[in-house]
Amino acid sequence: MPRVTFFPENITIAVEEGSTISDAVAAAGLEVSQPCGEQGRCGRCLVLVRAGSVRRRSTFRLSERDVNAGYALACQTVLTGDAVIEIPPQGEIARRLVSEKTYTAEIPLDYDPAWMQNLKQFQLSIPPPTLDDNRDDLSRLETCLREHDVTELTIPLPLLRSLNKRLRESNWNPWLVLYYDRTHPGEAVLIDTPVERQKLCGLAIDIGTTTVSANLMDLDNGTIIANAAEYNGQIARGEDIISRIIFASKFDGLEDLSTRVRQTIKSLLDQVIKSSGISPDQIYRVTIAGNPTMMHLFLQLPPESIRLEPYIPTTNHTPLYFAHELDLPVYPLAVVDSLPGTASYVGADICAGVHGSGLNTSDSLSLFIDVGTNGEIVLGNQDWLVTCACSAGPAFEGAGVVHGMRAARGAIEEVYIHGETLEPTYRVIGDSKPSGICGSGLISLLAEMFATGVVDRSGTISFDANTDRTREGMHGPEYVVAYAKETETGRDISITKVDIDNLIRAKAAIYAGFNVLVASVGLELKDIERILIGGAFGNYINIEKAIQIGMMPDIPRKQFHFLGNTSLLGTSLALLSHQDREDISRTAHQMTYIELSADNTFYEQFTAACFLPHTNMQIFPSVMEIWNQEITT
Amino acid sequence: MPRVTFFPENITIAVEEGSTISDAVAAAGLEVSQPCGEQGRCGRCLVLVRAGSVRRRSTFRLSERDVNAGYALACQTVLTGDAVIEIPPQGEIARRLVSEKTYTAEIPLDYDPAWMQNLKQFQLSIPPPTLDDNRDDLSRLETCLREHDVTELTIPLPLLRSLNKRLRESNWNPWLVLYYDRTHPGEAVLIDTPVERQKLCGLAIDIGTTTVSANLMDLDNGTIIANAAEYNGQIARGEDIISRIIFASKFDGLEDLSTRVRQTIKSLLDQVIKSSGISPDQIYRVTIAGNPTMMHLFLQLPPESIRLEPYIPTTNHTPLYFAHELDLPVYPLAVVDSLPGTASYVGADICAGVHGSGLNTSDSLSLFIDVGTNGEIVLGNQDWLVTCACSAGPAFEGAGVVHGMRAARGAIEEVYIHGETLEPTYRVIGDSKPSGICGSGLISLLAEMFATGVVDRSGTISFDANTDRTREGMHGPEYVVAYAKETETGRDISITKVDIDNLIRAKAAIYAGFNVLVASVGLELKDIERILIGGAFGNYINIEKAIQIGMMPDIPRKQFHFLGNTSLLGTSLALLSHQDREDISRTAHQMTYIELSADNTFYEQFTAACFLPHTNMQIFPSVMEIWNQEITT
Repeated sequence: MPRVTFFPENITIAVEEGSTISDAVAAAGLEVSQPCGEQGRCGRCLVLVRAGSVRRRSTFRLSERDVNAGYALACQTVLTGDAVIEIPPQGEIARRLVSEKTYTAEIPLDYDPAWMQNLKQFQLSIPPPTLDDNRDDLSRLETCLREHDVTELTIPLPLLRSLNKRLRESNWNPWLVLYYDRTHPGEAVLIDTPVERQKLCGLAIDIGTTTVSANLMDLDNGTIIANAAEYNGQIARGEDIISRIIFASKFDGLEDLSTRVRQTIKSLLDQVIKSSGISPDQIYRVTIAGNPTMMHLFLQLPPESIRLEPYIPTTNHTPLYFAHELDLPVYPLAVVDSLPGTASYVGADICAGVHGSGLNTSDSLSLFIDVGTNGEIVLGNQDWLVTCACSAGPAFEGAGVVHGMRAARGAIEEVYIHGETLEPTYRVIGDSKPSGICGSGLISLLAEMFATGVVDRSGTISFDANTDRTREGMHGPEYVVAYAKETETGRDISITKVDIDNLIRAKAAIYAGFNVLVASVGLELKDIERILIGGAFGNYINIEKAIQIGMMPDIPRKQFHFLGNTSLLGTSLALLSHQDREDISRTAHQMTYIELSADNTFYEQFTAACFLPHTNMQIFPSVMEIWNQEITT
Repeated sequence: MPRVTFFPENITIAVEEGSTISDAVAAAGLEVSQPCGEQGRCGRCLVLVRAGSVRRRSTFRLSERDVNAGYALACQTVLTGDAVIEIPPQGEIARRLVSEKTYTAEIPLDYDPAWMQNLKQFQLSIPPPTLDDNRDDLSRLETCLREHDVTELTIPLPLLRSLNKRLRESNWNPWLVLYYDRTHPGEAVLIDTPVERQKLCGLAIDIGTTTVSANLMDLDNGTIIANAAEYNGQIARGEDIISRIIFASKFDGLEDLSTRVRQTIKSLLDQVIKSSGISPDQIYRVTIAGNPTMMHLFLQLPPESIRLEPYIPTTNHTPLYFAHELDLPVYPLAVVDSLPGTASYVGADICAGVHGSGLNTSDSLSLFIDVGTNGEIVLGNQDWLVTCACSAGPAFEGAGVVHGMRAARGAIEEVYIHGETLEPTYRVIGDSKPSGICGSGLISLLAEMFATGVVDRSGTISFDANTDRTREGMHGPEYVVAYAKETETGRDISITKVDIDNLIRAKAAIYAGFNVLVASVGLELKDIERILIGGAFGNYINIEKAIQIGMMPDIPRKQFHFLGNTSLLGTSLALLSHQDREDISRTAHQMTYIELSADNTFYEQFTAACFLPHTNMQIFPSVMEIWNQEITT
C-alpha cells in the first residue's frame, strides 16, 4: 500500500493502490475543495506532488510547466506508489484559477502633479500697492502670474468678487488654484483663491447605461481615495440606450433622465465623501466618460439623432464647463471635462477604456471588449484602431436577470455545481450571505449548468435529473442557486430560462462582434495576440468559464487580460495627467467605426453563436475536451 | 418822429425820438421777450436792424460780426431815425443764446456693422450629415465657421443643448449670432442660434452716482432707439460715493447697493422696452460705464479699498461676463462689457466721456469736465491726458437741492429775473408745468439772482427788495421761482440758502479743479483752446450764466462746447464700434491721474472760488462789465 505524507500538516497515511489523491486526502481527515464533485472540471483540488509516483488521468487546465513543477488535480491523479504531497492554501488556488485584474487605476509610478496635472496650486507673492504703484488688484495678480507662465487669465465673477478680501487677508501672499489649458499655452482659469493650501481632489465618473461608477482621487499624489458604483437611476426609464432615447424625446423626458443620472452621481458622491471625509468643495476637477447617449443625457443634450440614420450626436468633443452649470454638487467652479468619443455608438467610455487598457500604446495586435450594455469592441494596436458596438445588453451587469446584481458585497461571483448531486457551491463578494448574482457569477453559473447537464446546448433547463434545484418557478423553469434560508434577502436566488436566454444572446452578440470585427480587417481570431476585457465584473473573471459558454474564443488562456472597469480607469488617468487626456483625444480621432447594423454577417454570426458554446463545436476544442472527459469519466 | 417798420408783420408806426426799439415794439402792439426787465442782461430781445439809424447803448453778448450784421438788443438800442426792423422767431433766439449740444450719440455717418460691430449675425450653410460624413453637429458647425474667420468657437451650454434642434429645424441653414473677440483673432463666442434673423440691439448704460442713463441702440444701423434716465436707486443709501462705500462695508450693504442699481437699470430697461417695442431678448450686448465705485457696486465688488489710501480698486479692466451672471434682465447670453477706467476716482465714465468728447483724438489743447457728482476734469490732447476729480457733489444733477430734479419733462431749465420787479420768467422742459429745477436751470437761476441782487457775492439772500419772492421758508431763507398754483406738484418751487451754498461749493470745486489741473502741467487757463462740458444737463446749457456764477472761466464763449452726457455717448460708441472701444482702452491707459487731496493749492483755490463769481473779480472781466452796466443804467 502506498504511503502518502501531506504537508503542511505532516500527516502520513497508507492508502490502497489505485486511490486518487482526493481519496487519500479524505482518508487523512484533511480537505481540498472540489465543488465540481471530483469531475476534474473546477480545478479547485489542485495539489503539489513534491515527490513520489502518481498517474495523472487528466491535466485539464494545467500548463506543461505546471505539470513539470509537480502540480496535479487531486481528483484526477492516481497514487501509484509512496508520495509527498503539499496542499496549498485555498485562496492561492482560487486566485490561480481566475483571471485577476492585471491593471488597476492606481497612482502612476511617476505621478508628478507639477508636470502632469492641469490643476495647479501655489502661493503668490504680490507687491502690496502704494500711492506710487496704485495698479488695481487684478492687474497686480496678472503681473505676478506671468512668472507662472500665465499670460492670459480668466477670472470667474465670484472670484473677482472675493479678490479684494483674499489679497488683503493673505497679506498679499494669496493661495491660488489655477486650471491650465494645455492646448493654449499661457491661458489659465482662476479656479479658487483658498484661505490656505487646499487638498486638491478630483472625481472621475464613468456613466454606464446600467452602472455608474466613480473614483474620488487625490490630485496631489494621484491615489484613489474612495470608489463607489451604483445602478444608473435612468434604468427606471428603460434598460437599454434605445428605450432611453425614446423616453428622452417625450415631454420632459430629457430633463427627467438628466436629473436621474445626476442624482445617481450625487449618491455616489455622498458615498465617497462619507467614506473619505473629503469635502465636496475640495473636488476641483471632474472627468466624465460614458457612451454618447449617456453623455448626451448627462449634459442634457437631446439624443434622438443618435438613434436615427445617419446617427449624429450633438458633439463628440464637449467643451469644458463649470460644475455649477451642470448642477454637479462639487466645488461650483470645478472644471468638468467630458471626455471625447468617436461616433454615435462608440463614445468616451470606449476611448477612455482603450486608453486604460493600454491597447493604443502597444504594438501587440489586441482585441479590447468593454462588457457593458453595448458591448463595444476595439481591434488594433498603437498604429490603427477599428471599433464596433454589438449591443450585448445589460445581462452581464446583472440587469435584465431576475436575481442579477452589480459586483458588490453580497454578489455571488463564482459558482460550481457538483457533477452528480447538482448541488452548487458559490463564493460571495465580501464573505456575506448572497443577495444576487453578478456578471462573473452568471458566466460561471451558466458554464457549470452546461457542464453538468442542467441546461442543454440551447440553454433549455432539464428536469430529468434527480434534484429539486430545477423547478418550475414564478418566471418559468429555473435552477435554484441558493435557498431563502442561506440568502441575505430571505428569498431563493435562482436563474430562470429567460435569464439564460438573455445571457446566451449577450454572449452570442459579443462573440459575433469579435468575428465580424476581426474579419473586417482581413484577420482571424487566431491572429489576435491579446484579448483585453473591461467591464464592471468585480475583481475576478473566470476566463475558462467565459470560454465554456462561448463568450470568449478558445485561444490560449495566457492571452486574456481582465482589466476591470477600463472606462473608469481611463477617465481617472485623464484626471491625473494631461498627457493621458491628450492620448484619449487622439484615440477618439484615430478610431474607425464599423456599423454592425450595416453588416449582414453579424446576424449570421450571432445566430450561430446562440448555442452553448456555439453551433460549431470544432472551434471550441477545449470545451469539447471537457465534454469528452465527462463522457469518459 | 422816426418811422419804424417791423417785419415779418409789416407794421409801420411813428415813435418819439429817443425811444428804444423795445418801446417801439410795444407801441406797435408786438412783443419781444425781455425777461430781465429791459436791463440788457438776458439777450432775449434780440432784433435785426435791416436798415435805418439806431444807437446801441450796449452790445452785451453780441459779437462784432453780429453788430455788423445788424443785430441789436431791443431794450438797449435807441431809435435815432427811420428804421426797418425784423423780429426773429423766439426759438431761434433761445437757441442762439445757449450752448446747444454740439455732439450727440447718433449714428456714425460711416457705421458699418460688418467692420465695426463685434456682434455679427449671418446664416450658415452646413452640409447635412450622411452615413459617410457622420461628423457630429458641433464639428460641422465649427468647420463651416472657418469661412467666417472663426477658428475657435466658444459655445455656452444652453446653446449646445439647443444646437441639434436649431440645425435640423433650419434644414442645416441656421442663423447665428456670434461675438467676435477682436483682441483674439479667430476666437468667437456663439451667442444665439435664432430661428430667424433677429434685430440685434444693444444697451449702453452710464451709471452715475446720482443719475443712471441708458441708450437702447439698434446695432444693425447704429441709431438710438430709445433713451431713458433715472436717479440711481442707491441715493437712498447716501448721496455721494464715500457714503455709498461706507454703506457697502456694512452687513449686506454691498448686496443691497448692487441690487438697487440693478433695479434702476431694470426700470430704465422697462422704459426703453415699453417705448420701443423691442424685446429684452433682442438685447445681445451691453456696455457699461461709471466711476470705479459705481462699477464696483454694479459688479458687486467690495469698494472699500477705493476710499482708503492707496486707493486701489479690484479692477479697472473688468473681463466680459454674460448678462445672466450679472442678473441683467436682457438676453441671458448678452455680452456685458464693463468699460475700463484709469484710477480709483477716474473711471470708465471719464474714459468713455473723454472719448465721447473727442478730446483724445484732437490736437487742440482741451479741458474736459464731466459735471457730475464727482466733477472729473481732464486736460490734454491726442498726445497726453492728465485728470483729476474735484468732488463737486450732486447739486448740478438736481440732487442735494430741495427742488432740484433731473433734466426731464417738468424741469425748469432756464430762468430770468426781472431787474426791477424781481419776478422770474422760466422755461420748462417739455412745455409742461414745472416740477422742479434741473442743473442748467439752477446755474441760470443763481446767475440771475446774483445779477439782480437777490443774492450777494457770498450767496446770502437779501430781504431788502420789495418782493415777497424772498422769504423765510421751511428750510430757511429762500427765493420762490414758481408758486404752487403754477406748478405740477401743487407746491411752491423755491431755492433756499442751503441750496445756494451747495451750488456755490459745487461750482467752486469745479473752478478750483480747472486751475489746479492746468497749473499742474505748467499752463494757465488762457492757454486752453477748448472747454468741453459733459453732464446730464438736458439739451442746453447757458455758458454765459455758468461764467457769471464763476463755474466756468471767463474766456471767449466760442471756445465752449456743451456735449451733454459724454459718458453715455462714449459708452454708446463703444457699443457700436470696436475701434471706439479700443480707443477708450487706450485712453484709460494713457491718462495720468492727479490726486487733488494731495495738493494743497486745491483748497486755496476752492476757498477763493466760494464767492460769486470769485474773490478776484478781475479774472471775470465780462461779469464785471455786467455789474458796471447795472450801475450805469
